[in-house]
Amino acid sequence: MQGNRQQPPAAIYPPTERTVPTRSPDRAAYDKELVHAVLDEGYVCHLGFVRDGAPVVLPTLYGRIGERLYVHGSTGSRPLLAAGRADPGLPVCLTVTHVDGLVLARSAFHHSINYRSVVVHGTAYDVTDPEEKRQALDALVDHVVPGRAADSRPADKKELAATAVVRLDLNEVSAKLRTGGVNDEPEDLSLPHWAGVVPLRKGYDAPLADPDLAPGIELPGYLADL
Amino acid sequence: MQGNRQQPPAAIYPPTERTVPTRSPDRAAYDKELVHAVLDEGYVCHLGFVRDGAPVVLPTLYGRIGERLYVHGSTGSRPLLAAGRADPGLPVCLTVTHVDGLVLARSAFHHSINYRSVVVHGTAYDVTDPEEKRQALDALVDHVVPGRAADSRPADKKELAATAVVRLDLNEVSAKLRTGGVNDEPEDLSLPHWAGVVPLRKGYDAPLADPDLAPGIELPGYLADL
Repeated sequence: MQGNRQQPPAAIYPPTERTVPTRSPDRAAYDKELVHAVLDEGYVCHLGFVRDGAPVVLPTLYGRIGERLYVHGSTGSRPLLAAGRADPGLPVCLTVTHVDGLVLARSAFHHSINYRSVVVHGTAYDVTDPEEKRQALDALVDHVVPGRAADSRPADKKELAATAVVRLDLNEVSAKLRTGGVNDEPEDLSLPHWAGVVPLRKGYDAPLADPDLAPGIELPGYLADL
Repeated sequence: MQGNRQQPPAAIYPPTERTVPTRSPDRAAYDKELVHAVLDEGYVCHLGFVRDGAPVVLPTLYGRIGERLYVHGSTGSRPLLAAGRADPGLPVCLTVTHVDGLVLARSAFHHSINYRSVVVHGTAYDVTDPEEKRQALDALVDHVVPGRAADSRPADKKELAATAVVRLDLNEVSAKLRTGGVNDEPEDLSLPHWAGVVPLRKGYDAPLADPDLAPGIELPGYLADL
């Protein structure tokens, strides 16, 4: 029926009670594309879970395949290693944060940080299927350096068994952002303090080759482009 | 008694059951100086707490004064805002992570990250004393840009009341570090894959002055030095 085409459904994660913040709700976003972009820019997340009634937050590597996150489970914590073996999995909160700039206002009160973060609530399950685990590990490596998984020796059976990977579906997800400049009070604008934004510089220094590198191996293009 | 001087007691956080990792315990450290150095290099932490039985992890600003951390409590989360009003405070886990380099091994399995992280377990209390809160906010601002607190308009009474700050003592604390190069298996050394470490570049781009900056205000030295 031309002229009466339906709009595609908005690609968002439906907000829930715990993904709507009580403060600055205007900074919250549920757009899937935005969430994916924030997730794909990083590779270290902070994973929270409950152990003996108390919270635990550990940094660990993650990768994304579609609407699924994979998390390196060998973080030194028993509960995480046991995540999926337990039924019905381990309740987790996975958070990824990029700091983009320092917002220096004239007033101490209005100092802030420009950032983009994603918070995922859900349940982590141990990945047991060897093929899924292999793909997850490729995703983890490629999240750190795109293109790297194909340029390394794949894990063998023993290594695969020794690596714990947990899976977390993207269902209850929100992004939070602060962008832009200084929000000082009008009466503070004439104060003698410098105000503005200091952007963070992001990138890498020159790669340091392993001293045992076999002769003739050049720096691969995907590293030169980093 | 000369010649029989006692060694000063080791300045460490006594390890506890939950600060000793089950994996890579050799990467764990409890040295107070090291912990302070890792904490003082950052200003964004990931704070975990339990809400309705489930974990929540939020990024927020922190500062350190001696053996005490202060955390900006206006994170948009009710439980955190209510932290100290509740008796006996809110159990939290505060984690700070610095990524220093990408470790690219010849084998996918030995890929890693060079990092330094600190994990603090404890109880967060709302800071109600105005003087303590003022000092805490100065510490928060100075953690982001050393010297900045003295070069901004201090919070007035109303702003101070509108800012939630929670306190967390450094008692149950551990650092975890991975440094150095690639740890490939000897039989992989001849593989044709580049291997080595890619150090992260850290720093800031040129500060962007607020368009409303009063005339004649120069970039302060503490920003030029960043």
